[in-house]
Order: sequence, then C-alpha cells, then structure tokens
Amino acid sequence: MEEKNEKWKVISSEYLHNEPWLTVRKDHVILPNGNHIPAYYILEYPEWVNVIAITREGHFVFIRQYRHGIQEVSYELCAGVCEKEDASPLISAQRELLEETGYGNGTWKEYMVLSPNPSTHTNLTHCFIATDVERLSDQHLEATEDLSVHLLTLQQVKDLLQGDAIKQALMAAPLWKYIAENKLF
Amino acid sequence: MEEKNEKWKVISSEYLHNEPWLTVRKDHVILPNGNHIPAYYILEYPEWVNVIAITREGHFVFIRQYRHGIQEVSYELCAGVCEKEDASPLISAQRELLEETGYGNGTWKEYMVLSPNPSTHTNLTHCFIATDVERLSDQHLEATEDLSVHLLTLQQVKDLLQGDAIKQALMAAPLWKYIAENKLF
Repeated sequence: MEEKNEKWKVISSEYLHNEPWLTVRKDHVILPNGNHIPAYYILEYPEWVNVIAITREGHFVFIRQYRHGIQEVSYELCAGVCEKEDASPLISAQRELLEETGYGNGTWKEYMVLSPNPSTHTNLTHCFIATDVERLSDQHLEATEDLSVHLLTLQQVKDLLQGDAIKQALMAAPLWKYIAENKLF
Repeated sequence: MEEKNEKWKVISSEYLHNEPWLTVRKDHVILPNGNHIPAYYILEYPEWVNVIAITREGHFVFIRQYRHGIQEVSYELCAGVCEKEDASPLISAQRELLEETGYGNGTWKEYMVLSPNPSTHTNLTHCFIATDVERLSDQHLEATEDLSVHLLTLQQVKDLLQGDAIKQALMAAPLWKYIAENKLF
C-alpha cells in the first residue's frame, strides 16, 4: 500500500521569473505514489503581515483601496510585506500601520499565522492585534499607494464580515477569530 | 486633491503564461494619482470551492495532505477547483467532497465568499457548509492526489485552529466564522 502524506521529491527546479513582485519556480516532482508532476508551479514571496488595530476609543483602523485582481474597492486591514531591513514581522507590521494610516503605539501581539495558499505560495502571513493605538502622524504613502483611512465601530466591522465585504481571506480569518474569542457575535 | 479609491486604467496587457495551473497576466496600469505601474502581475484562476462537512454524528470531515508551497503536511477542509462542466460552485463542492472523501448527501448552503488575494488573484472561493453528510463510497482520487480522510471532533477542530495548524486562510476564515456564529468558543 502506498504511503500517505509524505513530502514530494523534487528532481529538477527552475525559475521562470525572478522579479520583486513575481517569482515563479517550476518544479518537476515525484509523489510518494510514484506519479510525476513535470511542471508544478510555486510562487515565492517574502513574509507578509497584517494588523487588527484598535484605538483607545474602541474604533477599528481600516483602509479602503482598489484591488486590481478582483477590480473592486474594499475595506481592508492594514497589511504589507516584510522588508529585508525589518528586524521582525512585528517591526514590519508597526512600520506598515504608521506608513499607511499614521497610527502607532499601543500594545501589540502576534495573533495568528496563516498561509495565503500552502500549495502554491512559499510564505506565511503574520497577523497582529494592536490595542490602544493612537494617531501619531499623517499617512506616508508610496507613489503607487492610493488608500484612505477609516475608523469603524465593532458593529460596522461585524456588518462588513457578515456581508462578505471583507473578501481577503488573510483578513477575514483573524477578524472572525477575534469575534469568536471575545464572544462578540 | 487626487481622487481616492478609483479603478486603475489598463493601458496594455499581455499574457506571460497561459497554462491550466499558471496563467500570469502583466498589465501596464495608471493610478488615479497619475502614477504608472509598468508591470503589475495578475494571476488568473477559475473559481475555487471548499466545504465544512459535518456528519450526522457531529464529526468534521477533514483531509490531510502534503502541500508543496510550504512543504508541510496539514489538516485541511476538502477543497477544489470549479471545472467548466460544473453547473455551479455548489456542484463543484459536492463533486470534490465525494471524490476526495467519499462523503455526500446532507444539507448544503453557501456560507461565505472569499478572495485568495484581491490584489493578485482574479478568482473567488465559495465556502460551503454541509451538515448531516454520510459516507457513500470510497475515495476517487486523481493520480496526482495523495490524501487521507479524517473525522475530527469539534474539540479537535478548535485545538487545530487555536494552534495555527489550519494555516490555509481560505479554510481558517469559514471555520472561525462557524465557531463565532455558533458560540462554540
């Protein structure tokens, strides 16, 4: 009987693209059952972060921006990429919150770790929760960022979740976990 | 003042890859603030489905398989791709559950709609919940599928969620929603 749940064996590997925003690797793999997949595509990315940021007054710091994949504007948590110069995912998340929203300080903890897609993506997303954040400055956006900041009430966040308006799974998961753990439903 | 939250204008578009498991489009876009992004990469996929399947006895039907992106074996919901011949995402989800686990029948509803990544992916994931499912047959796996079926208790599912062992965000989100809505935390 074939063995289940074993790692695949990679017999060759090549990069089809190797750019900052698109790194695609093609692996020729053999499964434990002996079957070959001659072209299995892997997307390599750096680690990602996002944060549920809640102000001293109990408002949730959301951003609203256009997303070209689904060609829709939507409410999102602040999120970003871990840069090489960031000492840790926490530093990345704090940097992104300050840059994108102008909010900072408060009490931070890593809340959950998710994969955008364990079958195709190499990276993980570190989801933080930051309480008692406060407005420290204006936004400091990059030229290619076009987003607005919105302070939402818990009821507004719950309405967005229940209406499937928070579509990004990496954001819906920690928000639903927060609702579940704090018995807010 | 620049306008916020508007759609980007695509001034040219080309396909770098156009295969069943990897379709990459490169768009040259102009943002509402006038800035250009000469190479914005979009991954085109068909719609995806997954299902929280619960047996008549209250067990959760999970699968366990190796995922080459993060090179780990993990517990997952049954999930798959909407094939062209499927009349609807519901049909796709019912087909995948039967093929991958041998379970079927029961009462089905669409539970939430998520995006794997609204900035890079064109597709949505339709998450279903199926109650009172029963074992109808053996698995019918494709040659490249190597997965085992596991019936988990609610407590086991909660332990996996709290231990960050359900890493796939498209699965963690509906499971945490289920825990929140049914006040099971």
